[in-house]
Amino acid sequence: MKRNLKWNLSEDRFFDPEPTQRRIAMKLYDSVAHLPIISPHSHVDPRLLADEHGSFGTPADLLIIPDHYVFRMLYSQGIPLENLGIPRRDGGPTEKDHRKVWQIFADHFYLFRGTPTGVWLADELNNVFGIEEKLTGQNAQSIYDQIEAKLKRPEFQPRALFKRFNIEVMCTTDAATDSLTYHQMLQRSGWSGKIRPTFRPDAVVHLQTPGWRDNIKALSKTSGIAVTSYKNFIRALEDRRAFFKSMGALAADHATESAYTAELRPSEAEAIFHRALHGKANAEDARRFNAHMIMEFARMSIDDGLVMQLHVGSIRDHNHYIYGRFGPNMGADIPSQSEFTKNLRPLLNKYGIDTRLTLILFTLDESAYARELAPLAGHYPAVLLGPPWWFHDSLNGMRRYFDRVMETAGLQNTVGFNDDTRAFPSIPARHDLWRRLSANWIAGLVVRGIVDKEDASEMILDMAYRLAKKAYKIP
Amino acid sequence: MKRNLKWNLSEDRFFDPEPTQRRIAMKLYDSVAHLPIISPHSHVDPRLLADEHGSFGTPADLLIIPDHYVFRMLYSQGIPLENLGIPRRDGGPTEKDHRKVWQIFADHFYLFRGTPTGVWLADELNNVFGIEEKLTGQNAQSIYDQIEAKLKRPEFQPRALFKRFNIEVMCTTDAATDSLTYHQMLQRSGWSGKIRPTFRPDAVVHLQTPGWRDNIKALSKTSGIAVTSYKNFIRALEDRRAFFKSMGALAADHATESAYTAELRPSEAEAIFHRALHGKANAEDARRFNAHMIMEFARMSIDDGLVMQLHVGSIRDHNHYIYGRFGPNMGADIPSQSEFTKNLRPLLNKYGIDTRLTLILFTLDESAYARELAPLAGHYPAVLLGPPWWFHDSLNGMRRYFDRVMETAGLQNTVGFNDDTRAFPSIPARHDLWRRLSANWIAGLVVRGIVDKEDASEMILDMAYRLAKKAYKIP
Amino acid sequence: MKRNLKWNLSEDRFFDPEPTQRRIAMKLYDSVAHLPIISPHSHVDPRLLADEHGSFGTPADLLIIPDHYVFRMLYSQGIPLENLGIPRRDGGPTEKDHRKVWQIFADHFYLFRGTPTGVWLADELNNVFGIEEKLTGQNAQSIYDQIEAKLKRPEFQPRALFKRFNIEVMCTTDAATDSLTYHQMLQRSGWSGKIRPTFRPDAVVHLQTPGWRDNIKALSKTSGIAVTSYKNFIRALEDRRAFFKSMGALAADHATESAYTAELRPSEAEAIFHRALHGKANAEDARRFNAHMIMEFARMSIDDGLVMQLHVGSIRDHNHYIYGRFGPNMGADIPSQSEFTKNLRPLLNKYGIDTRLTLILFTLDESAYARELAPLAGHYPAVLLGPPWWFHDSLNGMRRYFDRVMETAGLQNTVGFNDDTRAFPSIPARHDLWRRLSANWIAGLVVRGIVDKEDASEMILDMAYRLAKKAYKIP
Repeated sequence: MKRNLKWNLSEDRFFDPEPTQRRIAMKLYDSVAHLPIISPHSHVDPRLLADEHGSFGTPADLLIIPDHYVFRMLYSQGIPLENLGIPRRDGGPTEKDHRKVWQIFADHFYLFRGTPTGVWLADELNNVFGIEEKLTGQNAQSIYDQIEAKLKRPEFQPRALFKRFNIEVMCTTDAATDSLTYHQMLQRSGWSGKIRPTFRPDAVVHLQTPGWRDNIKALSKTSGIAVTSYKNFIRALEDRRAFFKSMGALAADHATESAYTAELRPSEAEAIFHRALHGKANAEDARRFNAHMIMEFARMSIDDGLVMQLHVGSIRDHNHYIYGRFGPNMGADIPSQSEFTKNLRPLLNKYGIDTRLTLILFTLDESAYARELAPLAGHYPAVLLGPPWWFHDSLNGMRRYFDRVMETAGLQNTVGFNDDTRAFPSIPARHDLWRRLSANWIAGLVVRGIVDKEDASEMILDMAYRLAKKAYKIP
Repeated sequence: MKRNLKWNLSEDRFFDPEPTQRRIAMKLYDSVAHLPIISPHSHVDPRLLADEHGSFGTPADLLIIPDHYVFRMLYSQGIPLENLGIPRRDGGPTEKDHRKVWQIFADHFYLFRGTPTGVWLADELNNVFGIEEKLTGQNAQSIYDQIEAKLKRPEFQPRALFKRFNIEVMCTTDAATDSLTYHQMLQRSGWSGKIRPTFRPDAVVHLQTPGWRDNIKALSKTSGIAVTSYKNFIRALEDRRAFFKSMGALAADHATESAYTAELRPSEAEAIFHRALHGKANAEDARRFNAHMIMEFARMSIDDGLVMQLHVGSIRDHNHYIYGRFGPNMGADIPSQSEFTKNLRPLLNKYGIDTRLTLILFTLDESAYARELAPLAGHYPAVLLGPPWWFHDSLNGMRRYFDRVMETAGLQNTVGFNDDTRAFPSIPARHDLWRRLSANWIAGLVVRGIVDKEDASEMILDMAYRLAKKAYKIP
Repeated sequence: MKRNLKWNLSEDRFFDPEPTQRRIAMKLYDSVAHLPIISPHSHVDPRLLADEHGSFGTPADLLIIPDHYVFRMLYSQGIPLENLGIPRRDGGPTEKDHRKVWQIFADHFYLFRGTPTGVWLADELNNVFGIEEKLTGQNAQSIYDQIEAKLKRPEFQPRALFKRFNIEVMCTTDAATDSLTYHQMLQRSGWSGKIRPTFRPDAVVHLQTPGWRDNIKALSKTSGIAVTSYKNFIRALEDRRAFFKSMGALAADHATESAYTAELRPSEAEAIFHRALHGKANAEDARRFNAHMIMEFARMSIDDGLVMQLHVGSIRDHNHYIYGRFGPNMGADIPSQSEFTKNLRPLLNKYGIDTRLTLILFTLDESAYARELAPLAGHYPAVLLGPPWWFHDSLNGMRRYFDRVMETAGLQNTVGFNDDTRAFPSIPARHDLWRRLSANWIAGLVVRGIVDKEDASEMILDMAYRLAKKAYKIP
């Protein structure tokens, strides 16, 4: 086989090879490829867009240093994060020369063969930055030059790319204590891009989070309610939700190791909260309090209409060394087994039959798709299933999701796509992948006579655009 | 794509698109498409067939009201079961106009896109009732008219359809306390259709079943043995099994949340049973008693030759509101994680090596297929694997089953197909789907050179007909 | 379909049927089909090769009696192991006429339809022994004659086949107490075949292994260190590892029901060890001691450089009757659920970030592939994933492995193939299957535009040869 130095981005990439299916997939994809992007759950920093003249920095600042998908793979092969320019908590030395960081990345680009990160990077480099050559150790510096030059041009500023990416709306993820300064700046700026905040209270809910008491102080401060009791804690949260809602929030988001839910008596909730305030809450307290708060948040969602997202099953900061040295979100979060049927029963019996609630469930444990989540979504009026999350936001992850979820849940009990990314330039590549894989899946149903072409054309619109808008109540 | 108002039921539906595989699949399917149906495990009400002039009622009576696969999907999208004419336990008002019920169903028929229910309904409406148009909100009433007219004709009475469906034998599922009145009527009527009962004692075995003590009274009455002790309980069960066997039963069936098995000392079994009789059995009592009874039933199966079926892992009536208002079997049973390797070890060590026992295992937890069930079936002489159950009785469910079970268990340690349905008119569609998917799976082995055509032609006969007959010892 | 009496071993077997993918797969496969075999983890008895004139015995000695994959399938269908000539522990009667054993096997050869064992046997009989006819009950004795005649010829002696199979290196699996007599004979013999031992200390580590105290006595004897304390136990193990290393060992191997790891205080380890020496260790002692020893072995691997393999999740000797009558490795080992994320956390936090450690993980619980193992391998520098193990070393098992592991772990965090077999003549068939399935998987990536042909040609070399050599540090 001859040496190929171009990116391999064929028009019909990611489709199954059988020609009839591929032809149908291509047609379906073409019908939605240019629709606006709905991004109801992302981790893009609103500061990027708040400044009209914001910049992404260097190619390494853009593509490597903030993206734990990229650097965790290099780390897994023995490359210290220091060498990749990842900032240390203690401010100790790390690589400052971004050309060196880029060279390491290029030298090891073969590590991404067959991975979704590899696919996204090829798409970004080619379609966003016009790089035609495949990245190698040899051409690393010349490609760095090209990207660097582009990044200095106004059409590669964040707001310009936001428009070019055709993003109709993007929802960020923001701490309950966040003052939403950048969202306020965005709204005052008169820029037409729609950026909405999402209420994410984990840091004040998980009693054993490092710095929890500081977080509670911040909550008191930001809400103006002295959080000296469980009762006030609830009031402060309700207050913050109202503020978020006034700032355009449509949803809340909750991350939890386990889907365990259980309602505490008020006195018990109060007692645990007091122990926590005195630094005396133990793991079991934290577990029970979290189980209770998930139910409380369902109640609040019914009251204020914010869509409730529940992300279950990530063991955060599994590697203590990396956490101690570099902090959270360093590619060291590892999934674990998750149970939904028994754990969510208290919540679902109390709130799951209420059509005012929208509860979107996300899992990292794919064995729950067909076994628990699809049956739950296919029964309870409140429950919808989120798209394949994190590690599963991949070609095979999507295929497995379609395969295991759709027959039992039905497409209408799902919510389209979330990109869930902090890697801004990867957003079009991720949505494009979803649209291609959706088209391919539907085409597979068509060639097998499971749905007809009329249904297929509705389904692809749902998956690419309409379901996300409907589920997140986007105006 | 142009509007398509016909059902899309191509001759080669459900086969993989690659032409060589599809051609082989078609040939294999053709070789078994017209074989009689063996239905060794169904939930059809024998009353339907006991009356020579029985009727299915209205189209809604036939296709919606008794079929929780259908109405749970509508409920999941916020449609109250009352609006669908589902009878309430308290006799309160529900929709009586079946044309309105049908209209709701037709308006929401898009919910079934890509679902097995959608596929079965298309097949039933087209092949059983001759409806050529695809069901929509617009043509709902006209299609209702057509089905209603058909249902009034003698050739659409249950017995006529039973013959038309070419059902060689159908085994119903009947409570241990059932007097089998309708089976007796059937046998006395001289009708040639073969309907056999199956012994299902769950309601007297699960100590915490609502109404357990009433069930025990019924057991006393029907067996003529006063069930005042564990010892008499066992005698009464043995008596009922003998009666069922005399009525043609070939099998017993047991549903259990967990596969946990453990043998109690007789004194302990007696003590728990007495606590239960006095309304004092707790959850742990019930769990241990069930674990013990599963072993007892294996012993009885060895004694009387009834095939033992074990259905593991459904959490029944997960939604208390729906259970309270409408009762059981309302689409609110949700699967949960199941463990077999450790749980079944006591039973298998005592009885699994006995070639007189046939123990057929069913799971809702597909992760157990390749990990636990296929290795167990591929080792223990007594163990066979039942077909994909419930939610997994679908195109992808069957594919996953073939993929994960067959290599390790071997086809001969499986039992062909069960339709497991209370939806009588869906029986041919379900068996047809199994036969098509089986043919497609085997064709996939042929095109990959894994089996030759000689083996393939034997395998499809096994899957479509012979394995079910052999496993259930059908004469 | 006409009767086909030839083996069906097409050149392009096991490839997906779509012609473009098949063509690419064929090319990729051709590029590695004739590379030497790297067998870094096998269970071949070194005695076979130690004797220059060794023999495999009869066809039943070669293909049935030592291969639990074969006889467990026959047993599952009710054939007693006695009838298959499997030796009893008590020396009681079993079938001595190997022609009768062979006849039973041939009569039941249909049980292996669609199984990996069936595929391997076809390959062995055809490609190793030149048998052209498909095995049936009719031709059983004539095929027996042909194989028997071949086995008497020098070119079918073990060493000759080792050369013919083009095995570059084979690592056996040997008890910690093994004197490695046959490895010494092999080395002294001047034969050029490379056979290396692997250190497998399970029998002295699992405190509740039958005969544990005898194993400890053997350890004292072979190490020359009186194992009267935990401290000496560790010293003796280190001594044995040094000896194994001097004999060419590159790796250690550890089998454990659970991946649970935890470090004991030295005094606690000492206390448990003393209880065990006095026959007083209970199951919890054994569990905790094992958890501790896994961590100790990681420490030793860092010290001495032996690659650490961890095989998790087999419940050995599930069937007590078979164990009592025939002993271990009788096809009665059944997998169970396995957890890695929480269980390995202590080990990984202490040693997983050390690039001197190579820890290769194996599972029988495929649900852990995408959920836990791929994320762990894709993060920790020390962790690599072993190939699909045991039941999963099959066509679908490999497909599932590629599908679920590669996107998140990346190919470079895997280790190529292990045949893991005691069935010597099946080695080429197993590696050939892996190479074909690897080629097919990569071809699937190429036709979908996920990798280009340049990458594909590197990937197939990695999978067929290079990754195994690199991971096991084979010179």
